[in-house]
Amino acid sequence: MNTVRFGIVGLGRLGRRHAGNLAWHVPGARLVAACSPVKEERDWAQEHLPQLALHADYDELLADESIDAVWLVTPTSLHATQIIAALRAGKHVFCEKPLSLDLAECDAVIEEHARHPHLHVMIGFVRRFDASYRDAFDSVAAGAIGRPFMVRSQTCDKNDPEGFFVRFAPTSGGLFLDCSVHDIDLARWLLGNPKPKRVYASGTIAIHEGLRECNDIDNGVGVVEFDDGRLAVFYASRTMAHGHDTQTEVIGTAGALSVGRNPRANRVEIADAHGVRNACTPTFFERFEDAFLREAQAFVAALVEGKPTGLTLEDAREATRIGIAMREAYEAGGAVEL
Amino acid sequence: MNTVRFGIVGLGRLGRRHAGNLAWHVPGARLVAACSPVKEERDWAQEHLPQLALHADYDELLADESIDAVWLVTPTSLHATQIIAALRAGKHVFCEKPLSLDLAECDAVIEEHARHPHLHVMIGFVRRFDASYRDAFDSVAAGAIGRPFMVRSQTCDKNDPEGFFVRFAPTSGGLFLDCSVHDIDLARWLLGNPKPKRVYASGTIAIHEGLRECNDIDNGVGVVEFDDGRLAVFYASRTMAHGHDTQTEVIGTAGALSVGRNPRANRVEIADAHGVRNACTPTFFERFEDAFLREAQAFVAALVEGKPTGLTLEDAREATRIGIAMREAYEAGGAVEL
Amino acid sequence: MNTVRFGIVGLGRLGRRHAGNLAWHVPGARLVAACSPVKEERDWAQEHLPQLALHADYDELLADESIDAVWLVTPTSLHATQIIAALRAGKHVFCEKPLSLDLAECDAVIEEHARHPHLHVMIGFVRRFDASYRDAFDSVAAGAIGRPFMVRSQTCDKNDPEGFFVRFAPTSGGLFLDCSVHDIDLARWLLGNPKPKRVYASGTIAIHEGLRECNDIDNGVGVVEFDDGRLAVFYASRTMAHGHDTQTEVIGTAGALSVGRNPRANRVEIADAHGVRNACTPTFFERFEDAFLREAQAFVAALVEGKPTGLTLEDAREATRIGIAMREAYEAGGAVEL
Amino acid sequence: MNTVRFGIVGLGRLGRRHAGNLAWHVPGARLVAACSPVKEERDWAQEHLPQLALHADYDELLADESIDAVWLVTPTSLHATQIIAALRAGKHVFCEKPLSLDLAECDAVIEEHARHPHLHVMIGFVRRFDASYRDAFDSVAAGAIGRPFMVRSQTCDKNDPEGFFVRFAPTSGGLFLDCSVHDIDLARWLLGNPKPKRVYASGTIAIHEGLRECNDIDNGVGVVEFDDGRLAVFYASRTMAHGHDTQTEVIGTAGALSVGRNPRANRVEIADAHGVRNACTPTFFERFEDAFLREAQAFVAALVEGKPTGLTLEDAREATRIGIAMREAYEAGGAVEL
Repeated sequence: MNTVRFGIVGLGRLGRRHAGNLAWHVPGARLVAACSPVKEERDWAQEHLPQLALHADYDELLADESIDAVWLVTPTSLHATQIIAALRAGKHVFCEKPLSLDLAECDAVIEEHARHPHLHVMIGFVRRFDASYRDAFDSVAAGAIGRPFMVRSQTCDKNDPEGFFVRFAPTSGGLFLDCSVHDIDLARWLLGNPKPKRVYASGTIAIHEGLRECNDIDNGVGVVEFDDGRLAVFYASRTMAHGHDTQTEVIGTAGALSVGRNPRANRVEIADAHGVRNACTPTFFERFEDAFLREAQAFVAALVEGKPTGLTLEDAREATRIGIAMREAYEAGGAVEL
Repeated sequence: MNTVRFGIVGLGRLGRRHAGNLAWHVPGARLVAACSPVKEERDWAQEHLPQLALHADYDELLADESIDAVWLVTPTSLHATQIIAALRAGKHVFCEKPLSLDLAECDAVIEEHARHPHLHVMIGFVRRFDASYRDAFDSVAAGAIGRPFMVRSQTCDKNDPEGFFVRFAPTSGGLFLDCSVHDIDLARWLLGNPKPKRVYASGTIAIHEGLRECNDIDNGVGVVEFDDGRLAVFYASRTMAHGHDTQTEVIGTAGALSVGRNPRANRVEIADAHGVRNACTPTFFERFEDAFLREAQAFVAALVEGKPTGLTLEDAREATRIGIAMREAYEAGGAVEL
Repeated sequence: MNTVRFGIVGLGRLGRRHAGNLAWHVPGARLVAACSPVKEERDWAQEHLPQLALHADYDELLADESIDAVWLVTPTSLHATQIIAALRAGKHVFCEKPLSLDLAECDAVIEEHARHPHLHVMIGFVRRFDASYRDAFDSVAAGAIGRPFMVRSQTCDKNDPEGFFVRFAPTSGGLFLDCSVHDIDLARWLLGNPKPKRVYASGTIAIHEGLRECNDIDNGVGVVEFDDGRLAVFYASRTMAHGHDTQTEVIGTAGALSVGRNPRANRVEIADAHGVRNACTPTFFERFEDAFLREAQAFVAALVEGKPTGLTLEDAREATRIGIAMREAYEAGGAVEL
Repeated sequence: MNTVRFGIVGLGRLGRRHAGNLAWHVPGARLVAACSPVKEERDWAQEHLPQLALHADYDELLADESIDAVWLVTPTSLHATQIIAALRAGKHVFCEKPLSLDLAECDAVIEEHARHPHLHVMIGFVRRFDASYRDAFDSVAAGAIGRPFMVRSQTCDKNDPEGFFVRFAPTSGGLFLDCSVHDIDLARWLLGNPKPKRVYASGTIAIHEGLRECNDIDNGVGVVEFDDGRLAVFYASRTMAHGHDTQTEVIGTAGALSVGRNPRANRVEIADAHGVRNACTPTFFERFEDAFLREAQAFVAALVEGKPTGLTLEDAREATRIGIAMREAYEAGGAVEL
């Protein structure tokens, strides 16, 4: 395979970015079809993308034999079913994170994939493709901080006074499954995939009282103990005043590496009556703009050159499993053994 | 009282700093006596301090009626007994933290103090007197970050390859009681003294295997839930490669304040083959040099001008109580209710 | 015009980046031809670029009527001649900076261009297209720092112990014309194109004694006075130990904006025995990777949509003129009036 | 001499700080007298300092034979006369910078001092005693950046909308002599006292038009060429929006050291709707609080222990000489040879 022919599914804000990347910026990729049940999204594709087939129906897209791979940017609740259907149709699959909020569904995907070992499935843990995270990973691997024994990682979104995510809460899986899965995946990756043993979690509602209905929180912390003594500490928030603040620290016996300690928007600083300051990345969308592109390039490289991405479905399942345990620990007010 | 006549007790490294401050730098203080069972320490006092009475025996010092106040820089195991004796001798007391590793002892001190309400007792939670922490506290109090609902705080010492503290471990009370008490006190102070409800803690030995004997750890994390939903997350370490790294973050509904995010030694940066970098404070001694002085000034101001320090024996007891709960949570591998 | 058909000229390191951008990443651009007298460069194009016509001879490329625009990444000494030839052949022109080291040549290009007003010529002052510089420019324009009255700007390259640039010195125009032209252009842009009045410059050889032969220097500073009292201070160096360090500061009556104060390579920081540090961008190539792409997008947008780039040939001439004055001021050891 | 008995002269804001240091914080110093023609200042001394003799008249103070040394915090125009009188009265002298705005006066002081070689005279170039500058100096001396060949240094004051300094302008000597003398002294110190060869300077009025009357400016830059090829670039400003911003950079063949790149007020950072930011030191008074104390300690150590301060009257004269040349270069619009 020299060129991968993609069909993208879902053309919301993030879907459009993926579509643009596949259409213009990924050598080896061709975006040949797009699918969305929403007419406005298909119209957007018509207008902004190179000529491609448009479908309202996912099965229709899967029936197109000229398509090598699907790129799913759809609601989480559809992920498992859509991946399984794509595999059965003989397509490679890229799917946005998380794989699923449900472990049984994760297992069903893994089982189906086992029946199609020649097909690639990758869940979009995009931070693994960010240049800074990649640099940190390589430095850790090269021994720059000795033996890494602890990760502290946070995913903190800028507060949306409109509380859009409150309406999204009933289906998001809750703060830990929606946000901390990224950190969980990073911690496992940076620590070399240790086996989790026990989880604690605590949380609070700082601002968005509407979350109380679905037992969700807008700020939460969690601790994961791994069975070799390694530790991970997570923080997730919906209520930051300054911007999207994703940070990760890996602590080792000979040093510590951090990524994103100051969520600076760019290289500009201003000195004025407010002091010396920098603007911050407003959302994950700006923070990980490059990483979304590198992720697509990595997936295409996996298909075309057989270059492994390092990300497995088991990784995605483990992130979900630990995220669920954090939610349970929060609800139980006590440790959850894994 | 215009001038407070002090007797200092204990002249180790920290005792000498306190002695120098009382002797030279605190208007309103006069250092008139020093006490140490160690001859070398008394000789040091003879040589380096203005003329003062020297005692090998604590009771001897207490018998000196010209002394208004004692300044205890002695091993933790002696704190409670020495404070009680000083109160009975009619002396004001400054005592290094922690008050005690034992709650019953804390209570005994509090009870004795109740019998001498005209005497001041202050436990040296020195960070409350650091200019940066004070600025952060004042900003929080002034509403700069809205309602503060979370504190993240760490006390991380530079690794001592000699492992001096391993030998000290049997009497230190363990990592949480030795290091995290500072962070516990800061969290309570910055959050407005909320009532703790539940505690988790985890820990590991990253380097100093010798700690295993006394069930201690060299890296630990803990979470405290308060009954109004506020949260505190602590990290303590003995194994930093870069220096003494004390950091605290207060997160509120309208912003977040941090103190000490980069433990820079001073205002110097160097750009060379290692990148752009700054040296770090090697130990708490350099980091809190000014704070030790301000602490002494505050205590003298309390005695001379009646200006409250804001620090009570109950604060010190609560820090010990939460620290003990963290140690128990770590040992139990589960939540401890308070 | 919906799509611009480009022929690239020159396929050295920077030429290859431009070629890749035009081939893959600029919607509206098609790279249809490449020209280089060097066989190895043509072979590279054959292997790495989409199918395109290859020429050893520039006139041959100009003779291709299907080409709309040329993209010159050639030695400075060829710029003026090649631009003029391209204009006469009816092509739009993008040309790497500087326009020329010679004012008469600049004027000849400007005159020729006046005869082809429908053709676009842009000199690649790439920093104007960097996201951070763009943000700074927009903030200044929006009044964020009041009236800007001073720019301080530097272009400092990492020392090359091999001294490659020493061999390049006889044709580079010297430190100020090679490096400071960027800063001169930035200062004019950020200050609103004030008229220069007087120039000073000083320089030294810190490391590369080989420069003495052609009267060049490896570190130099210059000051430009504008006739409305505005000031610019420049620094250029070939001898940085830490990396490529391009910084610019705009100082206004109500604040100051800086770009690139710490030339951090990415968002990673490490804390270890060297302190807390970050790696630096090694060369301008990494620092301005995105800017080279945005520059190409801006040029294509100018051709396709008529969207002005803001950069004129007069800007390029003025940068050369001031750069020459700085060199003369350095040589004269005194002020040069403009 | 074990204890130095001081008489302080001048009790304005800075004089009061010096008085407090001598009274309370400098072991080996005793403040025994104070002199001010202003009754309100003498009253302040009466109330806030330990018991001491008060004089309205300088000669009266000099007549007191129990006084070992005078500490002059008086207007610059009085410095030379007062130093000479003190030397003739057999007193050691500390005097605030600058020594004088007039070279002949500088020479007269140096000549008088030559007649009293047993007496110490130190001009208060306080930055040499700042812990960060001291660290930078020691690092440079230890070879951390190879051979230092360039200093960039600035003294930038926060804008005073009241323009107090405009009224002070007629006697201040102008921006360069008032502010840049500090930077000149630092550059000479950090570069190992090279011989200045040529000076350029430029300036502008950004805000305070009232300065035009006395031909002064509120923002100025200058370049000094030394005869071994070393360079210094200075910037002075009265109009910063963010605070007092004193920065210095030493560039060497193997690295660069900076002091004060971000004029942070303390270790606090805030993240809120304005981004991530830190407050800045409002004036030199806060920035150099510690340095004023260390300066006094160093002067007393010189008197008591004979420990050299490293600062000579020739250093002070040279700072004045270069400052005058900068003013002349600005006025002439051309280079001034030294």
